[in-house]
Amino acid sequence: MSLTIWLTGLPSAGKSTLASEVGKLLDKRGLDFEILDGDVMREYLTKDLGFSRLDRDNNVRRIGYVAQLLASHDVIAICPVISPYRQARAEVRQLHPPGRFLEVYIATALALCEERDVKGLYAKARSGEVANMTGIDDPYEVPEAPELTVDTGQRTIEECCDQIFALAMARLDSLATQRPPSQAGTP
Amino acid sequence: MSLTIWLTGLPSAGKSTLASEVGKLLDKRGLDFEILDGDVMREYLTKDLGFSRLDRDNNVRRIGYVAQLLASHDVIAICPVISPYRQARAEVRQLHPPGRFLEVYIATALALCEERDVKGLYAKARSGEVANMTGIDDPYEVPEAPELTVDTGQRTIEECCDQIFALAMARLDSLATQRPPSQAGTP
Repeated sequence: MSLTIWLTGLPSAGKSTLASEVGKLLDKRGLDFEILDGDVMREYLTKDLGFSRLDRDNNVRRIGYVAQLLASHDVIAICPVISPYRQARAEVRQLHPPGRFLEVYIATALALCEERDVKGLYAKARSGEVANMTGIDDPYEVPEAPELTVDTGQRTIEECCDQIFALAMARLDSLATQRPPSQAGTP
Repeated sequence: MSLTIWLTGLPSAGKSTLASEVGKLLDKRGLDFEILDGDVMREYLTKDLGFSRLDRDNNVRRIGYVAQLLASHDVIAICPVISPYRQARAEVRQLHPPGRFLEVYIATALALCEERDVKGLYAKARSGEVANMTGIDDPYEVPEAPELTVDTGQRTIEECCDQIFALAMARLDSLATQRPPSQAGTP
């Protein structure tokens, strides 16, 4: 039994980079993990989906379902997924046993994301070539109680990674030392 | 790295029962597994899909993708899925590294499946209440070269399970003792 590290944030916030770097840290520790990248998943699992609210939510739900499947075994699921809506993220949290879903908000400022514009989508959104761009003409609902917030504009990628890695390690430790609920309170 | 046991056959052929019983045998050996049941997956991963050829194939592809993800870690994926079309099954095989996809044809005769009619769907198909029922008014393409064929009309569930389990164990052993391809032929 493992856990899911869910990286939510605007396009170009640094989610995929962080996922990959956190993966390297886990690998060094000999921990098994899988990166379920929103963009990659769209090739396999969610090819049929567009960018309406319903489609975005279904994208999040499907990835969340696969994440909890992996996490229910010994695989840490790392999910860099925009996942703009609170409700869908909350649903994915509910799919997981208590404590096994870590919501990490990648709080990089829109201006910086737009400056990076890794896939050139912000430019296309500004010129009207692309519609439903999260942060421009599509909403992003900031997490209200994420387990962690990191800002790649304020800290280096390495520092952000260290924070995410430390959180995951602490949580795994704490889950491992918890007594099963049925035995709670017995001497 | 593990493998996928793909159980294909008509509705009521015994796929889910076999999946569950094979799971128990794996459990006794301390092997980690996950059952990706076609019907259960339709609740989570493939809720949007109907029973057209395209939808059935997408159902098979998505389950196959998740199966190979699990199998790429140390989880044996057991997939009881009608998966009526050869082409889609072949695509799922291709998603797996060589040797790590075991196609098991549950060859229970249509007459017996219809007699069992676990979900009452054959009756509904015969009365015209349900359309696109595999085996009645929708095709089932028999596997041409499955790794194993079992017939729950000719053998007990226990015997069929033993065959599937033995195949999986033999394959895991053989994969574990294979040299990595890059070293093949070196002394």
